[in-house]
Amino acid sequence: MTKSTTMHEFSPGLAGVPAAKSSISFVNGQTGLLEYRGVRIEELAEHSSFLETTYLLLYDQLPVQTELDRFVADVTQHRRIKYRITDLIKSLPEHGHPMDALQAAVAALGMFYPARNVLDRQVQDWSTIRLIAKVPTIVAAYYRLRRGDEPIQPRDDLDHTSNFLYMLTEKVPDALIAKVLDTCLILHAEHTMNASTFSGLVTASTLADPYTVVSSAVGTLKGPLHGGASQESVEMLEEIGSIENVRPYIKQRLAAKQKLMGFGHRIYKVKDPRAIVLQQLTQKVLVHYRPSSLLKVAEEVEHVGEELLANKGIHANVDFYSGVLYKTMGLDEDFFPTIFAMARVSGWLAHWLEQIKDNKLFRPDQIYEGQHDRAYVPIDRRLGGL
Amino acid sequence: MTKSTTMHEFSPGLAGVPAAKSSISFVNGQTGLLEYRGVRIEELAEHSSFLETTYLLLYDQLPVQTELDRFVADVTQHRRIKYRITDLIKSLPEHGHPMDALQAAVAALGMFYPARNVLDRQVQDWSTIRLIAKVPTIVAAYYRLRRGDEPIQPRDDLDHTSNFLYMLTEKVPDALIAKVLDTCLILHAEHTMNASTFSGLVTASTLADPYTVVSSAVGTLKGPLHGGASQESVEMLEEIGSIENVRPYIKQRLAAKQKLMGFGHRIYKVKDPRAIVLQQLTQKVLVHYRPSSLLKVAEEVEHVGEELLANKGIHANVDFYSGVLYKTMGLDEDFFPTIFAMARVSGWLAHWLEQIKDNKLFRPDQIYEGQHDRAYVPIDRRLGGL
Repeated sequence: MTKSTTMHEFSPGLAGVPAAKSSISFVNGQTGLLEYRGVRIEELAEHSSFLETTYLLLYDQLPVQTELDRFVADVTQHRRIKYRITDLIKSLPEHGHPMDALQAAVAALGMFYPARNVLDRQVQDWSTIRLIAKVPTIVAAYYRLRRGDEPIQPRDDLDHTSNFLYMLTEKVPDALIAKVLDTCLILHAEHTMNASTFSGLVTASTLADPYTVVSSAVGTLKGPLHGGASQESVEMLEEIGSIENVRPYIKQRLAAKQKLMGFGHRIYKVKDPRAIVLQQLTQKVLVHYRPSSLLKVAEEVEHVGEELLANKGIHANVDFYSGVLYKTMGLDEDFFPTIFAMARVSGWLAHWLEQIKDNKLFRPDQIYEGQHDRAYVPIDRRLGGL
Repeated sequence: MTKSTTMHEFSPGLAGVPAAKSSISFVNGQTGLLEYRGVRIEELAEHSSFLETTYLLLYDQLPVQTELDRFVADVTQHRRIKYRITDLIKSLPEHGHPMDALQAAVAALGMFYPARNVLDRQVQDWSTIRLIAKVPTIVAAYYRLRRGDEPIQPRDDLDHTSNFLYMLTEKVPDALIAKVLDTCLILHAEHTMNASTFSGLVTASTLADPYTVVSSAVGTLKGPLHGGASQESVEMLEEIGSIENVRPYIKQRLAAKQKLMGFGHRIYKVKDPRAIVLQQLTQKVLVHYRPSSLLKVAEEVEHVGEELLANKGIHANVDFYSGVLYKTMGLDEDFFPTIFAMARVSGWLAHWLEQIKDNKLFRPDQIYEGQHDRAYVPIDRRLGGL
């Protein structure tokens, strides 16, 4: 605990410090490569589904048909939430942030499905299935309840993503929209060691149950520096308001050395492979639907942003396109991070399983810079001045 | 993200890796020293109160009388929880773990008190006061509600700890018992960089609000490897059952190379200074109250354990004595970690304030050990065998 026993150099935010050995995903920001379990994200986006990708992330293998059918059936069967969880969500204030609602409800879920022995394979399998199945139901329930609408029971004849959109609107969604959202979930399912995954690992290392682990990760994803980017980029588009205002707005922002929301990425020096996929999907959506004014503004922001920033290696990122797509689907901005959470729960659970397989409690050190040997001065002899 | 860019050596669990610079607390395990803001824990245990110690942890200064009065008055005024939080707790299953209930309720608290700009001093002060004030009320509400009893409103004429015991039992507690519990809270309020504090810091580094931060930390404290030790040590005492069984039980356990619950500490090589204080308090409680059979078993376990293990630097630890004391106060074992949380919330908040003062998002690295360039094989051509 003392300075002298610290054998490692201090790196703020643990930048460059390996926190785990992992074989779940891999990023190369120089070449724009993202692999889940060694499979390129573009291939998964084109050919796979969110649940199949989840299976790959969890079990390090693409399922054969019977395995996939079983997994999908299990997830489908566990979509429903206890009426007490619905009651809990009803007790939450309507103006609160949906990520707080999700964090609270997921923590409460664990009370219904005790999972004390996390090393038990059965506990692992069923809690994984429950979390993947129930997180969308919780998100949809709060979405409706905060408007005063009754939540909608899941429909077992609909796939994972169509059912989610159905639970929001009570309408079976258009197939293209459901497919686009499913692809968004694939693209957000996992991204190596980030703050939410890492906080989940720290929680997991105490052998806390997976509901607790996911609840912690949801909390971390909520922070404006982590999961709030797609919300912020849509808010910027709304602030811009019109096509004519795009160029002056961006120029002014760059002149003031402000970041352009939805542009650039810490890791990717070329265009993020996920953003390329979403850019194409946004085009598809544009061809099929009458573009909203927001979509037109987004197109112009992308155009002007690329023109002014591409030479610096700064491109429209995954949050830019996913924000535009979610908005086009009619979702409220403050729900965007919950869609991120619905996707990332797969990655969190894959990292949880990896962590507990060869667990070591996270207990880093600190560099103490405070005082020593201060006396406890009795209160009547203290000098104020705080 | 790749092996080659990792500049730091891998240390499992980040052992020995400094995660932060801090001036909140200091431990020297060789000499048995624990200081909060430079003041020895023994002095605080003898002269201070939990709320005064909290003030010291948060603001790095012992308060003058007017400051302390104001702080205590503010905390006292914010003890009540919204009826909707009570409703939320009512919707939780009676058989769930109290730490899950606390994690869920704290996450929901944040929805009532939006604290988006965590760098605002007002937001910091009031959310800190609310959390310290309301956590005991939440714990007591779940304690009663799961038995089918109505929760009890706080009584403003009682001090922090007496009021907590009152909210459990509807009786004003004996002064000695309240004082002993208050001292337990002081001793558990802070302990440098541990797993729950660290997970709170990771969450805090995304600029998430303090309710979210504390909710994550509660989740991490819940894990059996972290906050469950006092519960386990009382469970062991109950398993032993009688004084006669103590020596054979311990000998058998040591022969089987099993740990003796409530003995030993990773850091302290001499007797933990907190355990020394609690040992004396346990004696005081013994003199004043007819010792329960559990207390007698505990005395004998301490005696035999010290006889057999002291020469290896292994002593009864803080969890051993606090478990015995909580049990003597009539608390259920599964509530022990919530008492720990009621205390440690002060330390978590002190670390939260320190983190955001000079924030950097935690984004450690990983060592990738997985595959590359795996093809997405179409499902009808896959080979099974998981």
